[in-house]
Amino acid sequence: MNHEKMINISTKRGFLWPSFEIYSGVSGFTDYGPLGAILKNNIMQLWRKQYIAGEGFYEIESPAVTPEEVLKASGHVDNFTDPMAQCDGCKDVFRADHIIEEVTNLEVEGMTNEELDKIVKKHNVNCPNCGDKLSEIWNYNLMFKTNIGAKGNKTGYMRPETAQGIFILFKRLSRFFKNKLPFGTVQLGKAYRNEISPRQGVIRLREFTQAEAEIFVDPENKTHPKFNTIADEKLVLNSQKTQIEGKDPITISAKEALENGIVANEILIYQIYLAKKFLKELGIPDEVLRFRQHLPNEMAHYAIDCWDVEVKTDRYGWVEIIGIADRGDYDLKSHSKHSNEELNIFIQYEEPKIISKTIAKPNMAKFGPSFKQNAPKVKSFLENIDSVMVEKIKTSIKKDGIYEALIDGEAFEIKNEHVTFEDVEEEIKGKKIIPHVIEPSFGIDRILYSVLLHSFHTAETEEDKEYFKLANSIAPIQVGVFPLMNKSELNSLATEITTNLRNSGFMVDYDTSGTIGKRYARADEIGVPIAITIDYDSLEDNSVTIRDRDTEEQERVSIKNLKKVVGNYFN
Amino acid sequence: MNHEKMINISTKRGFLWPSFEIYSGVSGFTDYGPLGAILKNNIMQLWRKQYIAGEGFYEIESPAVTPEEVLKASGHVDNFTDPMAQCDGCKDVFRADHIIEEVTNLEVEGMTNEELDKIVKKHNVNCPNCGDKLSEIWNYNLMFKTNIGAKGNKTGYMRPETAQGIFILFKRLSRFFKNKLPFGTVQLGKAYRNEISPRQGVIRLREFTQAEAEIFVDPENKTHPKFNTIADEKLVLNSQKTQIEGKDPITISAKEALENGIVANEILIYQIYLAKKFLKELGIPDEVLRFRQHLPNEMAHYAIDCWDVEVKTDRYGWVEIIGIADRGDYDLKSHSKHSNEELNIFIQYEEPKIISKTIAKPNMAKFGPSFKQNAPKVKSFLENIDSVMVEKIKTSIKKDGIYEALIDGEAFEIKNEHVTFEDVEEEIKGKKIIPHVIEPSFGIDRILYSVLLHSFHTAETEEDKEYFKLANSIAPIQVGVFPLMNKSELNSLATEITTNLRNSGFMVDYDTSGTIGKRYARADEIGVPIAITIDYDSLEDNSVTIRDRDTEEQERVSIKNLKKVVGNYFN
Repeated sequence: MNHEKMINISTKRGFLWPSFEIYSGVSGFTDYGPLGAILKNNIMQLWRKQYIAGEGFYEIESPAVTPEEVLKASGHVDNFTDPMAQCDGCKDVFRADHIIEEVTNLEVEGMTNEELDKIVKKHNVNCPNCGDKLSEIWNYNLMFKTNIGAKGNKTGYMRPETAQGIFILFKRLSRFFKNKLPFGTVQLGKAYRNEISPRQGVIRLREFTQAEAEIFVDPENKTHPKFNTIADEKLVLNSQKTQIEGKDPITISAKEALENGIVANEILIYQIYLAKKFLKELGIPDEVLRFRQHLPNEMAHYAIDCWDVEVKTDRYGWVEIIGIADRGDYDLKSHSKHSNEELNIFIQYEEPKIISKTIAKPNMAKFGPSFKQNAPKVKSFLENIDSVMVEKIKTSIKKDGIYEALIDGEAFEIKNEHVTFEDVEEEIKGKKIIPHVIEPSFGIDRILYSVLLHSFHTAETEEDKEYFKLANSIAPIQVGVFPLMNKSELNSLATEITTNLRNSGFMVDYDTSGTIGKRYARADEIGVPIAITIDYDSLEDNSVTIRDRDTEEQERVSIKNLKKVVGNYFN
Repeated sequence: MNHEKMINISTKRGFLWPSFEIYSGVSGFTDYGPLGAILKNNIMQLWRKQYIAGEGFYEIESPAVTPEEVLKASGHVDNFTDPMAQCDGCKDVFRADHIIEEVTNLEVEGMTNEELDKIVKKHNVNCPNCGDKLSEIWNYNLMFKTNIGAKGNKTGYMRPETAQGIFILFKRLSRFFKNKLPFGTVQLGKAYRNEISPRQGVIRLREFTQAEAEIFVDPENKTHPKFNTIADEKLVLNSQKTQIEGKDPITISAKEALENGIVANEILIYQIYLAKKFLKELGIPDEVLRFRQHLPNEMAHYAIDCWDVEVKTDRYGWVEIIGIADRGDYDLKSHSKHSNEELNIFIQYEEPKIISKTIAKPNMAKFGPSFKQNAPKVKSFLENIDSVMVEKIKTSIKKDGIYEALIDGEAFEIKNEHVTFEDVEEEIKGKKIIPHVIEPSFGIDRILYSVLLHSFHTAETEEDKEYFKLANSIAPIQVGVFPLMNKSELNSLATEITTNLRNSGFMVDYDTSGTIGKRYARADEIGVPIAITIDYDSLEDNSVTIRDRDTEEQERVSIKNLKKVVGNYFN
């Protein structure tokens, strides 16, 4: 693990480049260079393969520009804020909690601005730049704000997460999924946070890429049909308990984690397992990962359970790269309230339920004389009460001969003569429920950073090489094709091989410049898994040499088998 | 072609959904539903295949949030505007040119705001809503504006095109491509235009997806190495000449189009051919496409040549879906000027050139007495002038015995005694040039709309079906798997087949609900190319029925050959 060297090489070779560099750059943004863009795309396609083909989820795409109503409902307009302070002297602005933590070493997460102000005064926390006094702390909203349309009166924001685009499509989605729970919908796309002063490169971007899945589930049935296939998988969990007690994470099977109540439900554990599986495929080793449950003061008030996947880094400590939460019915309820749309689903029982109940039938012949012009009102009252109320009236009349009903603030005396009680059976086909949402949320840029950091192989001896030991499944360039000498006979065969491999869908780098050793070294550095060398013998024996990046072993392969041999590396 | 029906079905089935619908919607945005998102992704992956694997271009990804400097340099801050007018009465705002054209039927493209104001007065153009008077016309900038960071003094915009992100990376890109021209870089991503009053659905979005390639070429060599492979391809071209003369487009080979000077250069024609090839793979027929050259008043002042690919629609007439332009050196020159960075490339000659020239050597012994403290200044002047200037001084001294040099506004008399002229030879290895940019720019949303519109098959007879006859290469669902009856023996075999096909990477819809006829109809409607039916015989003979969407022919296939047979449909 060596952030410094990794960033140097990834900048030099075209994975990550500083944004707007010729205009002096702007922090909180990154460019993906030619190799970085392919790598990112490969990571996202692998994610799609796992969640769309593998889990039967579907993808949607909604706009990043979002009108204010949506983000008012989600809570972002009011609560998506960081505490901010400005220096009275140099006028620079700061994340108040960050500079307080740096100066005082106190843990201030979850404190109010008033509490933070007190700490600033008590510990004499001043401007880290010029040492001058800090202003009072206020809430700074992290969303990029804009106007939609030409009239200037429609506020919009760049979305702070891709999830909201899925929630507000719930009605259409549930129809698409034939109103059957559970169903999963994913979105991969840009999200935005206008950070106050981001200084952590790709780890804290103002524009970043998320891959989020929203799984809508029956609140009364959070089992997973494939749970038995993963029940014995071992997980290393840093639960609330182990954290609070300062203990090491526990290694435990999925089944035991459920039985011991460490993770709330099957679907959540299954998602933790899937996240682990995905990271393994990307080549991030288990040892640098931990699954950490949110502590009570971290968790949103509505969340039922929440786990972070964190990755170890030498530069930034443990960094959250994935969050997996059971968000309950918070999101659908909020949007339902703000939009006045019913966001629920009708769950049909397997068999209709027959329930016996007593109803109160008004005896209209006696109504006129007793209730006069209020007769319809009392009739409607009796016809619309639930069975508990019916029982209450029945009991009262039986006992006292009378029930005094309060209808629209007016009292009416209902007596035996007004009403007949009748036992009936009713068929109930199902019920309306608001699904709960289980949300695995992936930070693609941070995952790509982790892939680069942990695939980067630092040299341990002088002969050793430094290179990105990228997994074959995501390496941006799959094959290097090198004619041994830059001669036309060799070049024309090498070009033919390159074209054939490209037509078969492989990403090929054709390189003729420099010695063969230099070309191997350049290819190794950016993680090209195999290199094919065409030499003078190739012209005679129709064979080429394949060299493996990691073992550096060479194998002679007939050109007619090349497609198959190369294919075996990548399938 | 039937926009109305196509949109109905694509909304009902989950291709295109209105954005922010439960909050009453906002025009100029669209959501891609579960089928639309896959379709879009398939189109983009096919584009990548053609331009990255096929042409050897590389992709980059830059942020959508862009600081003002970049868009000042590109001209967007000053010129990316539409003429706007507001109604004095109802205060609604309008695209001035659009309402003028609607009322007067005049062609007003390219007119100034003053000229438009005159037409408004002369033709009495009033508010189309309430009939009240319109304000004077002003320029409305189409970019979404925002602030970057917390201090509020750094203006940013959502990028109006993806191209700028490539131009400003030129220095790093040319190093990546080992400083060899030509090289191509692409970007696929969101771009934004805050349209005044968009009313054309997916055709005029405020947030849309572009796929742009910027090909940096040697201005003196716009040949294409693969031109001979396409020289005889026939193109239907609507040139400036045919348009101005009101003639039909001409059918002409690529080679003839070049020889007759209809298209400016090989690279441009090759790109026109590639665009045509791409649209053909998407299943858009040639007959609904035309290639139209920009008229002189449409073309940007710096452009060398520019062609639009337009598609025929029943609702919006001919719609531009791709633009292919030779932009000259405009972009690199502008960014070089504004950023003070050299954005050029050193072109090494194949052989160094030896040139003979005369230099002026200062005779320092005579300098002190003549020029005193200015001696170094005059020396530096003589050493840094170009050969034209040397000749001028030499001639003047020969003729008049003196040359009066103006250095920093002061005159100095240079005489024969001050200078010796010497003939020397210089070796020149190459030269710095600013590459030209050839840009094919694809509007992905409009292309997706065209795919839906032109793949939609409307029924001609009562037995005929209405469905999306999508090309196999992009159909969002590739295979339907239907157990004939919803019985567990059939379901378990069907599930097994589904899982195996999904693991092989096919997009499968497993459907058990309704009669087999209804399931075929539902699958046909969304363009699923093949359906596999599992019946009771399947349990005996290990075979299933494959039904073709278009021919409705059925074929019995052994389960063990299924992967191969299905694969043949999609490779």
